[in-house]
Amino acid sequence: MLGLWLEDQQLSLRDDIPVPVPGAGEALVRVTQAGICNTDIELTRGYYPYRGVLGHEFVGIVVEGPPELEGQRVVGEINAVCGRCSACLNGRPTHCENRTVLGIVARDGAFAEYLTLPSENLFVVPGSIPDAAAVFTEPLAAALEIQEQIEVSADDNALVVGDGKLGQLVARTLALVGCELLVVGRHERKLGRLRDLGIPTALAREPARSAAGRGNEVEIGTGEDISGRFDLAVECTGNPDGFAIARDALRPRGTLVMKSTYAGSLTLDVSSLVVDEITLVGSRCGPFAPALELLGQQKVKVTDLVDAEYALTEAIEAMHRAQQPGALKVLLEIG
Amino acid sequence: MLGLWLEDQQLSLRDDIPVPVPGAGEALVRVTQAGICNTDIELTRGYYPYRGVLGHEFVGIVVEGPPELEGQRVVGEINAVCGRCSACLNGRPTHCENRTVLGIVARDGAFAEYLTLPSENLFVVPGSIPDAAAVFTEPLAAALEIQEQIEVSADDNALVVGDGKLGQLVARTLALVGCELLVVGRHERKLGRLRDLGIPTALAREPARSAAGRGNEVEIGTGEDISGRFDLAVECTGNPDGFAIARDALRPRGTLVMKSTYAGSLTLDVSSLVVDEITLVGSRCGPFAPALELLGQQKVKVTDLVDAEYALTEAIEAMHRAQQPGALKVLLEIG
Repeated sequence: MLGLWLEDQQLSLRDDIPVPVPGAGEALVRVTQAGICNTDIELTRGYYPYRGVLGHEFVGIVVEGPPELEGQRVVGEINAVCGRCSACLNGRPTHCENRTVLGIVARDGAFAEYLTLPSENLFVVPGSIPDAAAVFTEPLAAALEIQEQIEVSADDNALVVGDGKLGQLVARTLALVGCELLVVGRHERKLGRLRDLGIPTALAREPARSAAGRGNEVEIGTGEDISGRFDLAVECTGNPDGFAIARDALRPRGTLVMKSTYAGSLTLDVSSLVVDEITLVGSRCGPFAPALELLGQQKVKVTDLVDAEYALTEAIEAMHRAQQPGALKVLLEIG
Repeated sequence: MLGLWLEDQQLSLRDDIPVPVPGAGEALVRVTQAGICNTDIELTRGYYPYRGVLGHEFVGIVVEGPPELEGQRVVGEINAVCGRCSACLNGRPTHCENRTVLGIVARDGAFAEYLTLPSENLFVVPGSIPDAAAVFTEPLAAALEIQEQIEVSADDNALVVGDGKLGQLVARTLALVGCELLVVGRHERKLGRLRDLGIPTALAREPARSAAGRGNEVEIGTGEDISGRFDLAVECTGNPDGFAIARDALRPRGTLVMKSTYAGSLTLDVSSLVVDEITLVGSRCGPFAPALELLGQQKVKVTDLVDAEYALTEAIEAMHRAQQPGALKVLLEIG
């Protein structure tokens, strides 16, 4: 079959990839549409030494599996778990010690004609959700993970740092809570999509590091000072400047959610985190069922985030497009 | 009056310090005993540019103040707050934006014959608590702050990293919860004091950084591997090796409480915190009332932590003693 293969950080479009054979309890899925995520891009940069078919955001049709799933249109939870380790037995299956992860860890991914996943990972997509929205289920679930980990209330004042794909979804899910919300980003066009939905935004200038102080003075487009104003800040940029903006914006005892992985390590002023009693929360994969529910009820708009669609034969070009400054979601039309 | 003065990171014993004059709402306290904390030592190393009388752990007698306090033996909450800022008005007085902090920020401290604090900061010490125990109220409160911030249950498996003054108190307060507990430290003598109380300990060897993996393989004295075993790890060493041990010991979705300030910044593998959904919690000053209650009920032993007592005239020598490897609490007998 045709697929986008990653090996030694090199991408190649290969037509000689064997159709995967579902193992016990697994289903074979014909992929119809897939989405490019920043993690895919980071994998090509060596974030994790993965070798195989790339991709983990998808919609597809089950062609082999349990009778109740065969022929169904599905999305899939990307962590394939053992069910027997300490994490699995203690209600943390996404942290399974023996997990494979679709297109990320030891399991061929979604940028190909077919993929396999455990049947228990698959969720039937209601007919009301078009493919171009359903393909957002996985990143939308990741955005919702924040609210699985910490309580966000309508009284909170929340900052989202980053106007990219993940920042957009995080902001849109936080907006549903009714909390006070501000999204800081560097791309006027992307911020505009949030303002279209009634979400306040601010354009970040380069942070001017103060000579004397320990923090960053973040001057935002409005001339407003956001330092120390927020109960919650969600870092969705994956770069140290974004982290610095999020940290600086928090009040004492505020919470900083880290949604993005970082290519390198990050140097923190830990003493200031102790003195201000800041909580940092790492956040990764989230729950599919509520994400699908939000999409079905059209409570979260996602299709406006699609910048481009490419055929699988153009997957390498699509990956380039997804890395252009200002790009939002790039989709692959597969079947 | 006599006092230990810090200026430009230099300590001097001065006898020309004016007796402080209590402001509105403040009391004048004659200090009877004071304790040396690692923060005092860090201040001499330039952790924060403080100039004035050092010291914030004390017991004393109120010599001027409201009638109900005059003549009483007291301990005192170290943050003097404005009551009007956003932090004060929102139930976070220890984070007051205009606070002074006894012996730490813009308020002369306890290593002197007299100090002043707002009367509302003072707590009368029950007669059953000797001075040498009451002087531990402040650090004991700091240890209890952990349980104000996160829920620790008897089902939890908790690791304390560090066998120093703070690690000892943290371990002793966590032991009261009845959770599974292990203290890792580098000083056999200090660990012995915990074992005397029935608290399991392990001697940490130098962490051997693995060539391939991202974490530290922490080999402990028993030959046991503590990697990934704990729900909660409390870092009480203030050094990067201690942080690495705490991080490595956590299971996915575990919580790392940072109790110590660090002289410099710390470089973290943030991606691993995101992937493992780790929560980091900075933790500082805590509640005095429950600390005094524990001391009054003799539920937490503290006096075995006293290594030496010095007169105020020997305060510089006492500071040196407190910095010797393996030292626990050094007290100053003042009045």
